[in-house]
Amino acid sequence: MMRIFGQSGSGNCLKVKWTCDLLALPYVWTEIDTFGGGTRTPEFLAMNPAGQVPVVKFDDGRVLAQSNAIIRYLARDSHLIPQDPFDGARMDEWLFWEQYSHEPHIAVCRSQLVYLRKSRDQLDPEKVKRGYAALGRMETQLRATRFLIGERVSLADMALVAYTRVAHEGGFDLATYSAVRRWIGEAEQALGIAG
Amino acid sequence: MMRIFGQSGSGNCLKVKWTCDLLALPYVWTEIDTFGGGTRTPEFLAMNPAGQVPVVKFDDGRVLAQSNAIIRYLARDSHLIPQDPFDGARMDEWLFWEQYSHEPHIAVCRSQLVYLRKSRDQLDPEKVKRGYAALGRMETQLRATRFLIGERVSLADMALVAYTRVAHEGGFDLATYSAVRRWIGEAEQALGIAG
Repeated sequence: MMRIFGQSGSGNCLKVKWTCDLLALPYVWTEIDTFGGGTRTPEFLAMNPAGQVPVVKFDDGRVLAQSNAIIRYLARDSHLIPQDPFDGARMDEWLFWEQYSHEPHIAVCRSQLVYLRKSRDQLDPEKVKRGYAALGRMETQLRATRFLIGERVSLADMALVAYTRVAHEGGFDLATYSAVRRWIGEAEQALGIAG
Repeated sequence: MMRIFGQSGSGNCLKVKWTCDLLALPYVWTEIDTFGGGTRTPEFLAMNPAGQVPVVKFDDGRVLAQSNAIIRYLARDSHLIPQDPFDGARMDEWLFWEQYSHEPHIAVCRSQLVYLRKSRDQLDPEKVKRGYAALGRMETQLRATRFLIGERVSLADMALVAYTRVAHEGGFDLATYSAVRRWIGEAEQALGIAG
């Protein structure tokens, strides 16, 4: 059975779990203590030299890393990836944007407050600013369409909702982002994300 | 004809140009002065609210952003994307890793030295450290395989060679990365990258 190596508080790891749950793909979850050096052991680095979770290991021993590459592979024949190539490319645009312009700001601020126990005034103001810019970009899109690439849910929503739904834990105030708040609820429901 | 909006010194933009050149896809190049506010004009932001190059605009007015999403779309039926789904997923793993763990360190250091005229001792030591870590990860892989996902060139090489071939301009010394240096030459040749 497929094994997911992840940290249960990490949105990147939860994307993989949620995709498996939604598509009824069986898996075993192995919890990795990322803050206790769990990604720096020789065993882990032999599996993923990048030293990052999530990682999935298949029955035949093959290994895949990078959350968005993993969910794209697991969902390859599902309704979560548009069949039209251009719609698929727009989904990819959001996936790459998420890792470059959203996660490094919103998830990192959250990590610093929640796990590293920093206070809000210790956050990098540039990261806070860029996090709000990311929320603003999503708000603009989600005022125009129900989900990120149109009226149907896709992996773009899976990738973006993971950290957006806990953005407040990173100190981000969603009060003025009404379309984002509306979308979080609808995306959670469409993707079967609970709790 | 497809129009590429890009900045000719940017590896992210050059990936798109090289992919078009290699696959003989016709395009018109529009140079954007990114350091002079060219991505902050109302016209540009209407096209890409993320305010980033590259952007491609097709004949029918549709627009796509994010370098790796663009090349993945343009090369969708070519030899640059493996037909085997798992090999394609490993390619995606490198594409996402490039944007998260390589570009923000190696390309950003280069940008600060080349465009912002900073000196090497003004570079963020953490970015330098992470840039070398990225080179180390590539070196390990490229000692084992000719290209990043095996013996055949793919978009993983296109995405990674863009900034690795100019890493020295960011102050990175490739002297001890012999497999990376060997691969740069072979990837440039296989991908038709000159100059």
